[in-house]
Amino acid sequence: MVNGNMYALGSNRSVIRDLFEYGNERAKLVGRENIYDFSLGNPSVPAPEEVNEAIADIIASVPSVAVHGYTSAQGSEATRKAIADDLNARFGTSFTPAELYISCGAAASLVSTLRALIADDGTEIVGIAPFFPEYRCFVEANGGRFVLVPADEAEFQIDFAALERALTAKTAAVLINSPNNPSGTVYSEETIRRLALLLEKKSAEYGRAIYLISDEPYRELVYDGETVPFPPLYYKDTVVCYSYSKSLSLPGERIGYVLVPAAAAESARLYAAIAGAARASGYVCAPSLLQRVIERCAGVRPHLEEYAANRDLLYSALTEIGFRCVYPKGAFYMFIEAPDGDGDRFSEHAKQYDLLLVPGRSFGCERFLRISYCVSGEMIRKSIPAFKKAFDEYEGLPH
Amino acid sequence: MVNGNMYALGSNRSVIRDLFEYGNERAKLVGRENIYDFSLGNPSVPAPEEVNEAIADIIASVPSVAVHGYTSAQGSEATRKAIADDLNARFGTSFTPAELYISCGAAASLVSTLRALIADDGTEIVGIAPFFPEYRCFVEANGGRFVLVPADEAEFQIDFAALERALTAKTAAVLINSPNNPSGTVYSEETIRRLALLLEKKSAEYGRAIYLISDEPYRELVYDGETVPFPPLYYKDTVVCYSYSKSLSLPGERIGYVLVPAAAAESARLYAAIAGAARASGYVCAPSLLQRVIERCAGVRPHLEEYAANRDLLYSALTEIGFRCVYPKGAFYMFIEAPDGDGDRFSEHAKQYDLLLVPGRSFGCERFLRISYCVSGEMIRKSIPAFKKAFDEYEGLPH
Repeated sequence: MVNGNMYALGSNRSVIRDLFEYGNERAKLVGRENIYDFSLGNPSVPAPEEVNEAIADIIASVPSVAVHGYTSAQGSEATRKAIADDLNARFGTSFTPAELYISCGAAASLVSTLRALIADDGTEIVGIAPFFPEYRCFVEANGGRFVLVPADEAEFQIDFAALERALTAKTAAVLINSPNNPSGTVYSEETIRRLALLLEKKSAEYGRAIYLISDEPYRELVYDGETVPFPPLYYKDTVVCYSYSKSLSLPGERIGYVLVPAAAAESARLYAAIAGAARASGYVCAPSLLQRVIERCAGVRPHLEEYAANRDLLYSALTEIGFRCVYPKGAFYMFIEAPDGDGDRFSEHAKQYDLLLVPGRSFGCERFLRISYCVSGEMIRKSIPAFKKAFDEYEGLPH
Repeated sequence: MVNGNMYALGSNRSVIRDLFEYGNERAKLVGRENIYDFSLGNPSVPAPEEVNEAIADIIASVPSVAVHGYTSAQGSEATRKAIADDLNARFGTSFTPAELYISCGAAASLVSTLRALIADDGTEIVGIAPFFPEYRCFVEANGGRFVLVPADEAEFQIDFAALERALTAKTAAVLINSPNNPSGTVYSEETIRRLALLLEKKSAEYGRAIYLISDEPYRELVYDGETVPFPPLYYKDTVVCYSYSKSLSLPGERIGYVLVPAAAAESARLYAAIAGAARASGYVCAPSLLQRVIERCAGVRPHLEEYAANRDLLYSALTEIGFRCVYPKGAFYMFIEAPDGDGDRFSEHAKQYDLLLVPGRSFGCERFLRISYCVSGEMIRKSIPAFKKAFDEYEGLPH
């Protein structure tokens, strides 16, 4: 009587969530301060002060009916203009509000874009390992086929030979995520250029555009002055899915956008289909108070000092212990290799030391484990001896 | 390349929205104060003062990371408890937080419930005219068949003979909306009792529960001390889809819930499927700040004086002019019959007087027109002569 796929999606918790709940149970036994929980990607840095200042000012000064009333489905014109202005100032583009669709966060952006592009059950969406596990659910639960390209495990850039093999006449889009969850790597300008060239070649070959969907919730989270190439500048058929969850530390508020550049193939048709998909999914509009906050805070940048310090501390400690890890340039994740290349086994082993590390299997890289370092520096410092013990006491043999 | 159904949904504006946009264009020509726009169901009464007080207090007193962080997908336990407590106090029930799923408003509640129940493309969802037009889109865009039961045009209760004919072995659910948009009628206790009996009989006949989905955004909007029967007290296999959009005047904020009573058939499985459907649609959690507002304001009731005064004024003026209209007991809508029974024609005619009335066709009642009286009393008073003129100058002949 109930839809079996939806039941499966609702009853099978993700590995991440499972580990988090395990940590909560352990915390009851041994105390929260003795659990080194690196499982969740929940920002540990408060929202920039401008956010709560904006909220306070808006509710004090704007009439209630305007603050809390419906906006148009694509979002308030003023908010879309503020976002376009910010993008244009940073990237030298000339986007207009009509190219933006305000969404309830990146997941909503992605689902709306995917439902707009999945024309039938043969439609293929290509993901690249390591990848955010919900991508598979978003594609498959909405009628598409998720095609996974294996990781370039040396650098976590793109294995272009593997990607080229994955592209077919049924490929609607390639979905990328840089800065990357779970690896923390940032696709280099060279990677984006090669990706654009390959997609142009394949689009020409098939006589139709293969879209690039760029999922960018971590765009602002990069360290050491690293820059993140902005894909629409390299490949015209790019759709950007953005969220303020990480950049403004607002993951619970569900606010983001889809950018459909006018230059993209069939952009008007695609924008309308995204609007239709949002409607079909029950998104009436994005939360209205938060739209006004973004109108004022679109140009506010995150405080990154704490994340940067966490990364430096953890990276040097773990590599000194002997872990292999590609140096993470962005997001707040680090992807370490299990000493014996068995991420599941090392994750289980690490639990003995109350060290909660997400096995890489669900990200498409079973040799690895994800560490979310959006936690307190104090917890990281206390966890180092546990990492050392877990490494030293692991019988690091393949089996 | 783009999904044709989604494109159609995104590019075909609703009749309501069309009329509203027409009004905006006319307002530029003749002045906003000369347009009598009765098209939209956007609350005209501000949110109760407790709402903005709660927002101000929460951002001033709760740490940012807690206010704006992810909640669990089903919503914060404290918010669900506050809602359960409020329901239990009012209806003598004993719901627990585990029976509630916090959603991004009624549309999200409905889509999640429908996706959970639509098992395959033969699944039928039965709606009863007059009905909120998005129901059809929510069902059809998510793979089901929408079956419409014609209206009881005398009273806007339920034509039970027609409903019985519509129920088949493929019926997953019957979807009701009382107080009703667009008619403003409230289903009587007798109607709900008969509905429960019929569904029990048919469920027994088919050997499986036919769910009742009760869409209740207007539950709190009733006048003259009228009571709205609470369907779970009459029929155990009821799922309630609620929204605070109208009761707390927060339509832009997208906050509501689904109640899946433990007593309902396969309730655990259905609840999990609703969670899965929400996940598949990209709902990560409902907006977190608003969840905290509801935790504090679940028991706050709307100020109805303005709506009640509008209704009385309009109802007596229009019936005096000669319009036929079932006396509306709830919501903020009135459904008048076109003098010649042609709602489309009268809507067009009324535009000459800058009177914007939504034709009833899209609600499943082409003889009628919807008037949304969530507007200023002043506009209503000024509009009466226009109604009179439109009525008198209409050549009220069938054609």
